[in-house]
Amino acid sequence: MTALRIGLLGHGTVGSAFERLLAERAWRVAELTGREPEISGVLTRSHGDFGEILEHSDLIVELIGGVDDALTYVRRALEAGRDVVTANKQLLSRHGEELWELARERGLSLGFEAAVAGVVPVVRVLRESLAGARLERVHGIVNGTTNFILSEMTRTGCGYADALAEAQRLGYAESDPSDDVGGADAAAKMAILARLAFDARVHIDDVRFEGIEQITPGDIAYARELGLALKLVGTAERLEDGISVRVHPTFLYAAHPLASVGGSFNAVTVEAEAITEITMSGPGAGGMQTASAVLGDVIAAVSPGARAMPEASSVAIVKDVVSAYYLHMEVDDRPGVLAQIAAQLGEQGASIKSVVQRGLGEAAQLVMVIHPLPESRLQAAIEQIGALGFIRSRPRAIRVIDEEFE
Amino acid sequence: MTALRIGLLGHGTVGSAFERLLAERAWRVAELTGREPEISGVLTRSHGDFGEILEHSDLIVELIGGVDDALTYVRRALEAGRDVVTANKQLLSRHGEELWELARERGLSLGFEAAVAGVVPVVRVLRESLAGARLERVHGIVNGTTNFILSEMTRTGCGYADALAEAQRLGYAESDPSDDVGGADAAAKMAILARLAFDARVHIDDVRFEGIEQITPGDIAYARELGLALKLVGTAERLEDGISVRVHPTFLYAAHPLASVGGSFNAVTVEAEAITEITMSGPGAGGMQTASAVLGDVIAAVSPGARAMPEASSVAIVKDVVSAYYLHMEVDDRPGVLAQIAAQLGEQGASIKSVVQRGLGEAAQLVMVIHPLPESRLQAAIEQIGALGFIRSRPRAIRVIDEEFE
Repeated sequence: MTALRIGLLGHGTVGSAFERLLAERAWRVAELTGREPEISGVLTRSHGDFGEILEHSDLIVELIGGVDDALTYVRRALEAGRDVVTANKQLLSRHGEELWELARERGLSLGFEAAVAGVVPVVRVLRESLAGARLERVHGIVNGTTNFILSEMTRTGCGYADALAEAQRLGYAESDPSDDVGGADAAAKMAILARLAFDARVHIDDVRFEGIEQITPGDIAYARELGLALKLVGTAERLEDGISVRVHPTFLYAAHPLASVGGSFNAVTVEAEAITEITMSGPGAGGMQTASAVLGDVIAAVSPGARAMPEASSVAIVKDVVSAYYLHMEVDDRPGVLAQIAAQLGEQGASIKSVVQRGLGEAAQLVMVIHPLPESRLQAAIEQIGALGFIRSRPRAIRVIDEEFE
Repeated sequence: MTALRIGLLGHGTVGSAFERLLAERAWRVAELTGREPEISGVLTRSHGDFGEILEHSDLIVELIGGVDDALTYVRRALEAGRDVVTANKQLLSRHGEELWELARERGLSLGFEAAVAGVVPVVRVLRESLAGARLERVHGIVNGTTNFILSEMTRTGCGYADALAEAQRLGYAESDPSDDVGGADAAAKMAILARLAFDARVHIDDVRFEGIEQITPGDIAYARELGLALKLVGTAERLEDGISVRVHPTFLYAAHPLASVGGSFNAVTVEAEAITEITMSGPGAGGMQTASAVLGDVIAAVSPGARAMPEASSVAIVKDVVSAYYLHMEVDDRPGVLAQIAAQLGEQGASIKSVVQRGLGEAAQLVMVIHPLPESRLQAAIEQIGALGFIRSRPRAIRVIDEEFE
């Protein structure tokens, strides 16, 4: 049986889990592909020579992370005629088009299932099962760290800092969690999902994103009162004038398929007229889980008929998207406040769906749900309301996906 | 561009939806496969000649249903060197091995994504994404009719007959619903899923199944008290002595990924050590949704590298499986009843987890949850309890999947 020589870049949590899993399942890979897999070399930041590893490999597995070095390695591997499997979402959300084109031109496979939603096979389902469908929208919880933190805040009522500390203690968050909690990680994944769903050129710079650092236990408590769950949701959707790709903290109505996704799980909902919707969920993080997705891609890469990414078209990115919003304000507790806020909202065409007001001595918290309106209008209203004399802190807005607005 | 001539067998709900969808998406199929699709002939029970259609087709889509005629058509199509796509679970759960072997020997594609869980792409995910994983268990809600009926009974508190009538009114149940409500449809799908998950020869006769006709509003009310959801769950799992494949009404703990699957949706959870679990859900029925899965298979069939089903091995089917149970009894309301029942259960090694007793005049309803034990033991206990003088009707048992027993 021919050998399948795998050059492994990176030997952290996922890299070493991949090496273990490969050893355990080598017989199965051989059975499926007719080739005996072996690790022909391992490159870490401090050890190994990429050129030498490349020369002795049939396929490169890139798990070293970062952007610049990884780009060099993947580019060189493809140029040298090697199939590549990568879990690097930052790389693909920045340089995907160049690399997919390189792979397409040379008839090589560039697998990236592990880059998007952990073990959830959304890349394959979008590329293959749904290849014939006209997709309308993808919603995703694609970052396990933030989903764990929000689930923990919901479950225990604790604050953001405590939930983050717990996530770090359990290994769900890194010591520097900023990529996760700030939304950049989810944004990179949504850029890739949008590329897949719409065959549209999407760079991470096209993705608006916002993290969860500002979320308070109060927001979550209000959400519960309103029957909503708070999640960091990425959305890629086809609109009249183009597509929109964004990541925001979002209140979901209880029956939404993503509302019940708890802990560090990831989940993606794909909507199209012909299929209504499909939801897929599973663990988002974990070395072994990611390694399992990488192994699936390795098998696919050396099986006949690996599909190239179709060419992307240029599609306009819509910036001003219509959503419903939750609006949180701290105000002086005196008569006329609500009327003035309502007037400012009305000026921007915003209509109020529900209000909760709660006194806190001289101050009051005012929470509203606003019917769908363009984001630019909402921002204008927030500016105007923020300038009113009785406002004690800048109003905060969180997007709402409500059943009746869908 | 070469034509892709599709012979369509069957022109009911799915067949005509497929014809419409194909017309709408023909340009996309051409883009993806390099071939221009066209319907080269349609066979219905009263019109058309199969031999003639076969002669003028490159690929046969079998949506005519039934077993005997469908077997003849699919066999003849494969023998004539045509790729086949079918949505026929009864056919595959009875004659799958013969047909998969025929396809494998001739290097043909036999697609059947639409046979299992509607639009949920579980076949592809099992065959491809998870090809390298050692799967331990598959749980599925694979029948939309029964899930709708149970959801409706839960939502409204109505009885089985009313919920069935509502399902028929809305088109979720056929006028003769026996295949669905009796569990045979789900059993056929679970046979196919078990074949895929374990590469094991599984015939529908190997699948124990039970329907939902006996479920009462009382069962659902008790379940709610115990924090459980009632679903018709199919299970295929690897056990020490072989595999087990079965379909039963099942109480699920609230956090189980299948517990929140409502309406006519289908969902499948796949468990393996390396992936923990993946859950996929989506509409289980609907002509357009099934047609969409068929179209995905058509595209895959004419794309390079369609994978043959691996050969199946013979694996022992385990009959006596360990489960926890909910036990429902109607008894005379007098002292000593509970003690005698507990004694009979104890004799079979069954230990009681919780009890709810409710008086109804001279009678009482007694509901218990029993810790996991082999089914044979439970049946023996039921026989013994049923023979006790104070028992007013045969005890009923429903399987429980509880978090703490998992």
